[in-house]
Amino acid sequence: MEFKVNSKELEKLLTKIIPGIPPRTPVNILENFLFDISDGVLTVYASDMEMVLKSSINVICESNKQIVVPAKLFYDIIRNLPDDTLHFTIKDNGKMTLKRGKSEYTFSYLPGEDFPEIPSFPVTDTNEEDIHEIVINGVDLQEALDKTVFAISKEEIRAAMMGVLFDFAKDGIRFIATDGHRLSKYHHKGYKPDFVDQYIVPERAISIILKILSERDVKIFLSKTHIEFKLDDMELITRLIGKKYPDYNTVIPLENEFEMKINTKELLGVVKRMILFSTTGSRRVKFSIEPDNVEISAEDVEVGTSGKENIPCSYKGEPLSIGFNTQYVNDITNHITDQEEITFKFSSPSKAVIIQPVKAKENVDILMLLMPVRLNN
Amino acid sequence: MEFKVNSKELEKLLTKIIPGIPPRTPVNILENFLFDISDGVLTVYASDMEMVLKSSINVICESNKQIVVPAKLFYDIIRNLPDDTLHFTIKDNGKMTLKRGKSEYTFSYLPGEDFPEIPSFPVTDTNEEDIHEIVINGVDLQEALDKTVFAISKEEIRAAMMGVLFDFAKDGIRFIATDGHRLSKYHHKGYKPDFVDQYIVPERAISIILKILSERDVKIFLSKTHIEFKLDDMELITRLIGKKYPDYNTVIPLENEFEMKINTKELLGVVKRMILFSTTGSRRVKFSIEPDNVEISAEDVEVGTSGKENIPCSYKGEPLSIGFNTQYVNDITNHITDQEEITFKFSSPSKAVIIQPVKAKENVDILMLLMPVRLNN
Repeated sequence: MEFKVNSKELEKLLTKIIPGIPPRTPVNILENFLFDISDGVLTVYASDMEMVLKSSINVICESNKQIVVPAKLFYDIIRNLPDDTLHFTIKDNGKMTLKRGKSEYTFSYLPGEDFPEIPSFPVTDTNEEDIHEIVINGVDLQEALDKTVFAISKEEIRAAMMGVLFDFAKDGIRFIATDGHRLSKYHHKGYKPDFVDQYIVPERAISIILKILSERDVKIFLSKTHIEFKLDDMELITRLIGKKYPDYNTVIPLENEFEMKINTKELLGVVKRMILFSTTGSRRVKFSIEPDNVEISAEDVEVGTSGKENIPCSYKGEPLSIGFNTQYVNDITNHITDQEEITFKFSSPSKAVIIQPVKAKENVDILMLLMPVRLNN
Repeated sequence: MEFKVNSKELEKLLTKIIPGIPPRTPVNILENFLFDISDGVLTVYASDMEMVLKSSINVICESNKQIVVPAKLFYDIIRNLPDDTLHFTIKDNGKMTLKRGKSEYTFSYLPGEDFPEIPSFPVTDTNEEDIHEIVINGVDLQEALDKTVFAISKEEIRAAMMGVLFDFAKDGIRFIATDGHRLSKYHHKGYKPDFVDQYIVPERAISIILKILSERDVKIFLSKTHIEFKLDDMELITRLIGKKYPDYNTVIPLENEFEMKINTKELLGVVKRMILFSTTGSRRVKFSIEPDNVEISAEDVEVGTSGKENIPCSYKGEPLSIGFNTQYVNDITNHITDQEEITFKFSSPSKAVIIQPVKAKENVDILMLLMPVRLNN
C-alpha cells in the first residue's frame, strides 16, 4: 500500500511525538513509532506502556495499515529532507520505501500487531460514573506543574510520592508534590470542579506535558486508573499511580509565628553562591536572622572554604539560627522568582518552615514547606 | 598581603584562562590557577605542563606573592558576584579571604612554589639563531587551523601526526594535518617567511588557540622545542611535538585526470543523510559517477535500511564507482562549505582522491586528500 505526505508536515508531527519515546528501555520495540494509517489519517504513537503520546495528520492513501518504524532513524531522515512530497510504499516483505524525486530510502518495518498494548481511555472496565472531565487553561496548568514537580520524590520506596497529586475539590484544584523533606502546594481557586477526588500523575507524564503545553485550553479526562490530556491535535494518556497519597494537610504547621520578608532575587543570588561552598561536605546553609538582617553562611570543611553574606530582611520574631539543605532552598526560591518578595514563616530551628510569595496571584495560593537540618553549633 | 580588583575585570580575565585548565588530569594541582601578583599586576596561569595559557590585569597591591587557587570553584564564585570592588587578603596560614561589602568568603590556597614548572619561552638553552618570529592575522590563522585540525590522527602510535604541521617556506606557510586516511593541506601564499622550517603543534594547543583568536594579529615565536602565540593581552606557550613529520608531498597524486564538479551544499545534504544509513555497519558510502549525475548510496545491512540519491554533477572521465568512509566525506565537505562548488579528482577506485574548492580564495590553496574504501560489489 502507498501513502503520500509533505516532509515538513510529517516532521512537525514527529517532533511532537518523539518526546514520548522512552530514553532508555529494555523493551526494544518501544524505541519505535507505531504508525496507524486509516481512512486518510496517519496517527503516530509513542509509548512506554505506562503512557502514550499520539497525534495525527491527513495523508493521501488508498488502504489502511499499521506498521512499527524505528523512531530515531526515521525522525533523523525526515528532518534532514527539504520541503517536498514524500511517497511511501509499504511492501509485504517487511520493507518500506520512501521516494522523493530521484532519491529513495528503504527501511525495515514490523507489523503493527507487534507493538505492545498501549494505554487507552476510557478503559473498557470503567463505570461511566467514575469518569470526570475538566478544562484547564494551558498556562495555568503549566505554572501549577512547574511550581510543584521539582519537589516530587525520586525514591521508589515512596511510590505514591513519585508523582504530582491532582486534588479536586469544590474550592478549586490543588497540585501537590513532596519528597518528605520539602513540599510544594499550588492551589488554583479559579476552577470549580463538580467532583471531589485525588489522582497521582507520574513524573514522566508531567515532564512531557510541560514540554507541549501552550496558551490553549487542555481537556482532562479522569478515570480511577488513567488520565488523558487532550490539547488541540495531541493526546497524552497515562496510567495513574495507584497508591494512596499521604495526608499532606497534617504536615503543614499552622502556628509559625515568626515572619521574615526578603527580596527573592537577592536571596537567590546569595543561595547560588552558597551552593559552591556546600557541595562536597554537608550541603548545608545557615540562616542567622535578626530584625533587619539575615546572615547566610556555608562551609565546606573538606575543601577548607567558607562563605558568609548579609542581606537586609524584615523580621518579626525571636532571633533565630536555622539550617537548610542548600539545594532545597535554591529549588524553592528558584520557583518563586516571579514574585518580588517572599515570606519565611518559622516557629523553631527544628520545625518545618513555610515559604510563600508575599503577594499572591489572583485566585492562586502557593505554599512551599521545607524541613530544616540540624546545625552543628 | 592584600590586593583589590574589580569583580567583572577579574571575571573577564579568568574566562580567558580557564580553557587552559586540563579537563581530566591525574595531577590534581593542575586543576588550579597560579596567581602571580607582582608590582601592581596580577598574572593568571593555567597549565597542563605541556602548555601554558596566561594573561594579566592591573590590581592594587602593596607587596608581591604567588599563590595557587582552585580554578573551578574560584571562577564560579567570581562570575556569580555583582559588579563591585573585591578585597583579597592572603594570610600566612594558607587561607585567603575575599571581602565585598558585607560578604566574606574564605578559600584555602597553596604556595606558588607547589605549582609544577610551566613551559616558558624562549627556553634558556636555545641558540638565538634558532628562534624565529612571524606575525599572522588572526582570521587567516583561524581559517587555516579550522580547515586542517579535523584531520589529525587520534592514535598515539602516530605521535607525529597528532598535531598540525606548520611548514614555513619562501613561498608561504603550509598547514598540514593527516591521519593516514585523509589529509588536509592549507597553503597561504600571502606570507613570506624569512626562514624555512617545520614545527608540529599539538592538538590541544590548536583547539585552545581556535577559541581565543580574533581579527587581531597574532605574534608567533618559534624555537626548536616550543611555540608561543601572543595575542593582545594573552599568551599561549606549548611544547612542540618533537618528531619528524612524514613527507606529505609524496602521498599527493599528480595524475588524477578524472574531474567531477559538484555543488557543495547539495553534496553535504546528501552525505548527512547517508551517515544515517551507514552508522552501525560499514560506515561506507558509494559514489557512482556519470557525466551529468552522481548516484550516492549507502546501506546498513544490520538494520536493514538503505538510501540512494541522485544529484547533478559535471564529470569528465570514465564512469566510476568508488567507496568512501561516510564520516570522512562529511568532514571534508563540511570544511569547504564556504565555497559554492568543489572538485573531486580521481584516477581509479583504489587510489587517493583529491578534493578542492573550484574557486580558490586569493593567496590560498586548499587541498584535501581522501583514501577510498573497497566496495563489496
